[in-house]
Amino acid sequence: MYNFEYQNPTKIVFGKGEISKLKTLIAKGTKVMVTYGGGSIKTNGVYSQVMEALSHCNVVEFSGIEANPTYETCMKAIELGKKEHVEFVLAVGGGSVIDGSKFIIAGIKYVGNPWDFIEKKAIISEAVKLGTVLTLPATGSEMNCGFVLSRKETGEKLSIGHPLLFPQFSILDPETTYSLPIKQVRNGIVDAFIHTTEQYLTFPANAQIQDRFSESIISTLVEDGPKVLNNLENYELRANLMWSATMALNGLIGVGVPQDWATHLIGHELTAAYGLDHGQTLAIVLPSLLHYKKSEKLEKLAQYGRRVWALSGSDALVADCSIAKTREFFESLGVKTHLSDYGITPENFDHIIKTMDSHGEFYPKFIGEKGNISREDIKNILEMCR
Amino acid sequence: MYNFEYQNPTKIVFGKGEISKLKTLIAKGTKVMVTYGGGSIKTNGVYSQVMEALSHCNVVEFSGIEANPTYETCMKAIELGKKEHVEFVLAVGGGSVIDGSKFIIAGIKYVGNPWDFIEKKAIISEAVKLGTVLTLPATGSEMNCGFVLSRKETGEKLSIGHPLLFPQFSILDPETTYSLPIKQVRNGIVDAFIHTTEQYLTFPANAQIQDRFSESIISTLVEDGPKVLNNLENYELRANLMWSATMALNGLIGVGVPQDWATHLIGHELTAAYGLDHGQTLAIVLPSLLHYKKSEKLEKLAQYGRRVWALSGSDALVADCSIAKTREFFESLGVKTHLSDYGITPENFDHIIKTMDSHGEFYPKFIGEKGNISREDIKNILEMCR
Repeated sequence: MYNFEYQNPTKIVFGKGEISKLKTLIAKGTKVMVTYGGGSIKTNGVYSQVMEALSHCNVVEFSGIEANPTYETCMKAIELGKKEHVEFVLAVGGGSVIDGSKFIIAGIKYVGNPWDFIEKKAIISEAVKLGTVLTLPATGSEMNCGFVLSRKETGEKLSIGHPLLFPQFSILDPETTYSLPIKQVRNGIVDAFIHTTEQYLTFPANAQIQDRFSESIISTLVEDGPKVLNNLENYELRANLMWSATMALNGLIGVGVPQDWATHLIGHELTAAYGLDHGQTLAIVLPSLLHYKKSEKLEKLAQYGRRVWALSGSDALVADCSIAKTREFFESLGVKTHLSDYGITPENFDHIIKTMDSHGEFYPKFIGEKGNISREDIKNILEMCR
Repeated sequence: MYNFEYQNPTKIVFGKGEISKLKTLIAKGTKVMVTYGGGSIKTNGVYSQVMEALSHCNVVEFSGIEANPTYETCMKAIELGKKEHVEFVLAVGGGSVIDGSKFIIAGIKYVGNPWDFIEKKAIISEAVKLGTVLTLPATGSEMNCGFVLSRKETGEKLSIGHPLLFPQFSILDPETTYSLPIKQVRNGIVDAFIHTTEQYLTFPANAQIQDRFSESIISTLVEDGPKVLNNLENYELRANLMWSATMALNGLIGVGVPQDWATHLIGHELTAAYGLDHGQTLAIVLPSLLHYKKSEKLEKLAQYGRRVWALSGSDALVADCSIAKTREFFESLGVKTHLSDYGITPENFDHIIKTMDSHGEFYPKFIGEKGNISREDIKNILEMCR
């Protein structure tokens, strides 16, 4: 196990009916900006629950934060936040709304252009307080301090993190997820799954708790994920999925172990290039990446196959079958795992590499847990994703 | 899964050599009281590492906090802390030193007698900041806000908790555990194990993550515990044990699920009555309690047997065998599981019940996850512990 530091101050308020606790979680008279997305919270009852619980606060609203939140949209929220002297931002939605809101809380307190933070020309030194009401289990953003932001004009999709961006609290009411479009549920399961594998399917570091916790999360997603798709209003299944997704990316399973994240970095480029959903890109990239790096990941793939999928046989056989099982799992959820399934048949992937290169220092020349996946390797992996 | 709230702000600094980070973890010029136990830290190098790293601070020392820390000893530390206007308490040791220090940090800021907190005549409203350097993995006190304190004059052993008692940080260097007496290592493994079962071997609550995380901790203790006893200076094994013990009682596995704690409550009385180590009392009580409550705990015992011990067969068979495996595991560590093994052969257990009753409202008439273990049941369980 490597040395590590771990601290996560976010308060989780979990369970049905807990949105009403906003009454006590935010002080009376606070100027609150409620941020949300396209308005689905207005049809599923979440918006009215939130507004009722915020009757003791002075509320302004900012809607329209899109999937893969953009710099352009969030800058408008920052402008509003500054003008209104907002003291607290309450993000109501999924990872996109929460990620965008993290940029917003840093931006409101910054005199320059907050894109400086993304380009590491400035360091976040102050932020408005943030709370969240999570409605889509997937990204873990409700209990971590990172975010991913896209910039339309440049086609960039980049991420940073800072301890000041941890939410003060996050309310997780599984009932708010009943009305999610099925595609978002599927993508969310894949997202949580692959957040876990990024921190687990690397090389052994003798970290028993981290390994077993990762296997716990994956096993729960494998067991309950497909069930949810056939039992959309089953509270217990929804609760387990929601808590799994939070635990997959709140930092805990990643302490003291090597981390990969190549699937995410490649996936981000596929979203930028072809407009695929984040979860879809991950489901496409992961199986091919695991095959491509099978020899380096052999021990962990074999452990994964035996413990999660109850496979037996030689390490090589178990590794192969575990990758096949993984692909089959995504497909069984209804998330296709080849580019061609989405009608994408590029001649080559030079444009992907070119965009990666254009990110400069924010996109290392070599990625993966061993820092040895080159641009050429990425092209090879993408070829396998066709 | 039940509704729950979870927040744990303690910063964990984990790994070899990390004690030196005290230099930055505590601000220059702070008046620090270093609390410790019987002085083993002076022979194993921990004391000198701590003092060297605190050269930027104004240090006073308080030594002599005993196993099962007492009110009487801690009151002396409180007196010293008040006199010296201590701004920070650094607890260096195991769960006893840390538990005692939690009482101390609340007591220094309180004008009355801090036993009031234990008796719930007063609520903690202020506390000196606390940091810890953990040298004995067992109690989880380094990452929670509770403590257990004994009062010599009355024979009481009682526990309370308050969010102000979370350590600001805890340094966990597995190398500091190499020189522990073997008895403390054994007891520590049993303690972490039974902290986990108290939150896990109850009745099903459809909490997949919590169940699997509990199984992860127990499986790690089962796998690495016996190995440590034969490889006292194996860093990786020590690291896994240390992190397991912290995760067993930092609140995470207990969110949203029923909790038992009857083994602990009965065990506390055995320590008070016969001077047995805390870990020994737990190893004595748990197997008998599980047998006594087998029908109520059947589903979880069967799950435990299948997932942790790879047993198969009917629920009843797997439950029986899982209890036998548990007892065998404690014995294999060298922790005996019958009172007679310790030369204790009381005529009856009336005196235990009498002491319990004397605690008044702090010792409910009925305990356990269903609140249905009566005094009579406790006597029956103790009879099975002979």
